[in-house]
Amino acid sequence: MPNSQTSHIRINPNRLRADFDALSQFGATASGGVNRPAFSPAHLEMRRWFHEKARQAGLEILSDGAGNHSARLRCGPDGAKYLLMGSHLDSVPDGGRYDGALGVLAALEVLRTVQEQRLKLPYHLEAIDFTDEEGTLVSFLGSFAFCGLLTAADLEKPRGDPQALAEGLQRAGLTHESILAARRDPAQLAGYLELHVEQGSRMEKAGVQIGAVTHIAGIRFFRLTYTGSPGHGGTIPLEERRDAAWGASAFTLAVREIVMGGFPECFANVGRVEYRPGFFNTIPQQAELALEFRSPDPDQFDRLEQALFENAREQAQRFKLELNIEFIGKRDPARMDARIVSAVRESAAALGLSCTSIISRAGHDAQALATICPTGMIFIPSQGGLSHSPLEYTRWEDCVNGANVLLQTVLRCANLDLSS
Amino acid sequence: MPNSQTSHIRINPNRLRADFDALSQFGATASGGVNRPAFSPAHLEMRRWFHEKARQAGLEILSDGAGNHSARLRCGPDGAKYLLMGSHLDSVPDGGRYDGALGVLAALEVLRTVQEQRLKLPYHLEAIDFTDEEGTLVSFLGSFAFCGLLTAADLEKPRGDPQALAEGLQRAGLTHESILAARRDPAQLAGYLELHVEQGSRMEKAGVQIGAVTHIAGIRFFRLTYTGSPGHGGTIPLEERRDAAWGASAFTLAVREIVMGGFPECFANVGRVEYRPGFFNTIPQQAELALEFRSPDPDQFDRLEQALFENAREQAQRFKLELNIEFIGKRDPARMDARIVSAVRESAAALGLSCTSIISRAGHDAQALATICPTGMIFIPSQGGLSHSPLEYTRWEDCVNGANVLLQTVLRCANLDLSS
Repeated sequence: MPNSQTSHIRINPNRLRADFDALSQFGATASGGVNRPAFSPAHLEMRRWFHEKARQAGLEILSDGAGNHSARLRCGPDGAKYLLMGSHLDSVPDGGRYDGALGVLAALEVLRTVQEQRLKLPYHLEAIDFTDEEGTLVSFLGSFAFCGLLTAADLEKPRGDPQALAEGLQRAGLTHESILAARRDPAQLAGYLELHVEQGSRMEKAGVQIGAVTHIAGIRFFRLTYTGSPGHGGTIPLEERRDAAWGASAFTLAVREIVMGGFPECFANVGRVEYRPGFFNTIPQQAELALEFRSPDPDQFDRLEQALFENAREQAQRFKLELNIEFIGKRDPARMDARIVSAVRESAAALGLSCTSIISRAGHDAQALATICPTGMIFIPSQGGLSHSPLEYTRWEDCVNGANVLLQTVLRCANLDLSS
Repeated sequence: MPNSQTSHIRINPNRLRADFDALSQFGATASGGVNRPAFSPAHLEMRRWFHEKARQAGLEILSDGAGNHSARLRCGPDGAKYLLMGSHLDSVPDGGRYDGALGVLAALEVLRTVQEQRLKLPYHLEAIDFTDEEGTLVSFLGSFAFCGLLTAADLEKPRGDPQALAEGLQRAGLTHESILAARRDPAQLAGYLELHVEQGSRMEKAGVQIGAVTHIAGIRFFRLTYTGSPGHGGTIPLEERRDAAWGASAFTLAVREIVMGGFPECFANVGRVEYRPGFFNTIPQQAELALEFRSPDPDQFDRLEQALFENAREQAQRFKLELNIEFIGKRDPARMDARIVSAVRESAAALGLSCTSIISRAGHDAQALATICPTGMIFIPSQGGLSHSPLEYTRWEDCVNGANVLLQTVLRCANLDLSS
């Protein structure tokens, strides 16, 4: 598969649309967006709606201790693995209707379509909704727990408000213990597929309908501090100064040149700087800057980091400064399974859709799943690149295209031995 | 004068030393410095001591509504102008013993020496102590009021704590009204001479004993704001960004190059910068920086300002940013009277002391006085350039040299028609 008997199969666009419209009512805002952060009443309500929809379709329901919950279709032989599809139903505060929700609904729709067609596949199918992908409380809470990547510290020092986390867990009937025990056995998984809006404007600009994600960029955060000598800005000749602002400024410009000149697939940002003491007439003795950079693959990541820090040190030497580089955090880049990427491209071609390889700049649950099973992502265009905004919009035609590529990729994966 | 009868005259170094040691007790700190901000009990106490010293010497006492007070010697013909000498007795919090105090004591010593020698000069002499030169409460309160440069707004929005100003004025028996009425009639002034420690290390490094100050640098303050586009630092390609940090960084480096390359007598400092929004992953949409620059003369000042802002605008263009330049404040540069500068140099030479022309980077009361009468300053070396510190130190030999140059310059000025 797909073969002459399955290549014509399509999801039911009207059913998908009805689901999408129904789901968009949960946490709907006056501005046309949705407000349903993880464990908020609106979020928990829509999860109950998802259960009800799955039950109505005669699908099996599965929930874990991290609040991840799935609809399952047994369409494979006994003892078969599960091919997982999904995304997340939570949103950022005052977010858009497509981000996450579309991926979960498309997965559900694929299950129903396969069910209706009574197709037999080499794996069972599972449509999953991961908890708090947006990290309102804990970054990637659900998929990280699912993949065994979450630690007790992540829950004890959450990115969000600890009190809100405690209240949310209580509302959802979850505990730290249940979350940390939610790891799924990877041996049961054939792979993971996620349909998502691009959240950028590259596809729209290129006029392309489907994005076959090849990598999800990783990110590394550092704090760099240049230290020079203090002094009065009106009495020490510039030739004799050790002005930390010079190092910080030269490095900030160098970051731009390094990335643009040699790392076209990478991103970097100096988003914050602070000079100390920080007055008109005092020479900046210290300049502390916040650096993040992103790369789709570990090799480029390491080379970029090396190039950046080499330059940072050169600037320190040039201006006679000391330099301290402090590691703050990271998320590793994820490489999508090459066979799945090909399957996505072939599915798009078979459907007569234009397709491009694309790197995801934003983080996704797929980043976690890629650490435990063959993983792929399908992007569809975001109008104007807008996301995390009530103005987030994707043409419905593109949503249907994406769901059909997801379906056909699921069928096409049957020809792959994903466990190898 | 000076002639064969006066060129041998010297101040009394033992008397000056006794005064200096006595004065150093007021507000003395354990670390060897002094703490006597304007109108503090220690400051008011030392002012009473100065009165008593002047009275003991049979000198006339004069006080004005800004708290400036003087010892006067009538050594000129009836109706003659006053040649003013002095500095300030107040200190910065936890400052040094030489800054200001030495200039007042040397002026007093010159009066006593001229008095002892029964010299007749074409002018009377006056040794003045200006109020709050350090601006703990109001920048240059005394000398600005004296010269008619102080405004009601300066007192209503003081640089220091308004409550502390009110309490200090009450302690000193002064009011806003009395201060603003303290302007001295310039027609009564033959000129102003000030002996001061350098507060820098140029003279020590050059191994020179006397500095004939030619200019006091002016200062201009501006706030520059670059504005670009907001965005996520992980999804917008660097080529498409309008990152305000790039403009601010490039300008900060250019300031250094412009000053070092073309304005060796000028100083500049970018002491503070703030990016907004100011997070790791947000592209800086705005970068606001605090710029001050200093020049010894108005022409260079204007050329430097032009060069800086031309570059600032070039950087805005280069990075597709908007630029706003906001004027914050200024102090005009002061040119010392060329005839007095020559008199200082000649006096030093006659005393067998090495002498250099020098620009004062720091502000002094002489800056105000230069707006109303011929003005000159004499510098002596500061060990290690330290000032505004308990470690401030000038060799006693240099203090005596400075006082003798002051005396000889006073005598030499008799040959100049300073009213022309």
